[in-house]
Amino acid sequence: MSKGLFITLEGPDGAGKTTQMDNLAAYLAKRGRSVERTREPGGTRLAEAIRQLLLKPGYGPVDPRAEILLYAAARAQHVAERIRPALTAGKIVLCDRFADSTLAYQGYGRRLGAQLVEQINNLATANLKPDLTLLLDVPVEIGLRRRPGGADRMEQENLEFHRRVRQGYLELARREPRRVRLIDGTRSPEAVWAEIQGILDGLLAG
Amino acid sequence: MSKGLFITLEGPDGAGKTTQMDNLAAYLAKRGRSVERTREPGGTRLAEAIRQLLLKPGYGPVDPRAEILLYAAARAQHVAERIRPALTAGKIVLCDRFADSTLAYQGYGRRLGAQLVEQINNLATANLKPDLTLLLDVPVEIGLRRRPGGADRMEQENLEFHRRVRQGYLELARREPRRVRLIDGTRSPEAVWAEIQGILDGLLAG
Repeated sequence: MSKGLFITLEGPDGAGKTTQMDNLAAYLAKRGRSVERTREPGGTRLAEAIRQLLLKPGYGPVDPRAEILLYAAARAQHVAERIRPALTAGKIVLCDRFADSTLAYQGYGRRLGAQLVEQINNLATANLKPDLTLLLDVPVEIGLRRRPGGADRMEQENLEFHRRVRQGYLELARREPRRVRLIDGTRSPEAVWAEIQGILDGLLAG
Repeated sequence: MSKGLFITLEGPDGAGKTTQMDNLAAYLAKRGRSVERTREPGGTRLAEAIRQLLLKPGYGPVDPRAEILLYAAARAQHVAERIRPALTAGKIVLCDRFADSTLAYQGYGRRLGAQLVEQINNLATANLKPDLTLLLDVPVEIGLRRRPGGADRMEQENLEFHRRVRQGYLELARREPRRVRLIDGTRSPEAVWAEIQGILDGLLAG
């Protein structure tokens, strides 16, 4: 049985995460790997219910501490119920957003601070870290322009918020360059996928 | 304007908290004090929605870390949106369950440990502590027998769980005897209320 691998995709909405997730899943399946594809917040029934609370406008102003604790609760359930069992079974888990999103959006975007967020992340994940994180980076204006349809509560935040989020992601990539691979998401989807495929081949060979 | 006061009621379901909450609210109103009555988990729209997730069976086994993080999220919203503003306005806030419930049920009942729970409680409350906590103590069997109707998810736990919860509450009362007043809840509601009234008069005079 192959060893499980935990791969996460990070970056703002509009960076191309869904397209590259499709590419990853198809490529790995073709190589005969068992893939578990999931997303955050969500991935289990309880976590999806929490997702509804987080993304639906209408509960009035959400306290920043309540927000980060809700993300953490959804993550704890997701890790325990789905991600860890899949890894134990030798699968490759592909997850659209994980703990790094909380660091970027709540730690930097909402200015709750990296230290507090890391404490909460460690609690929620029981110290599970991705083996590889693909960070799709695009300038804030490009990410916002690419989004179709109406904006959810998170997207209604202002430009300065999204600039702090990007800054948080970039600092993370500088701090953990082996795990977090910074990928220029402004190029064509084909060019982005070529780079990701190269990184993936290296990981699978290693 | 009077100084705000934060009073919480703790103890198992069936200990008589609701009856004594009614007595407290009526007594304080008669003395002309402005009272804000609330409960946990809940107390705001978002927190009540979280309460539904926590108490409704049907999401399958809830991970203990997810559970405590959900309670903490509801508490953070409750404190920020309702409790702190009421205290700032000089009201007496009466709350049915607060952070001590998480210590007793998750820290002791689920064995997550007092230290972890206190960290999460401090985060969720932004270090807000009750001025007075009335702990209604009854033996486990009496509390369970007094409950009407069907059992929710929490009440389906076994006797050993409820014994650990009681132990947690009793240790808390030993550790913080000035704030946490241990009250024998096996007596008649009138006898219990007479004791609470005495404690309350002392607090209001002091």
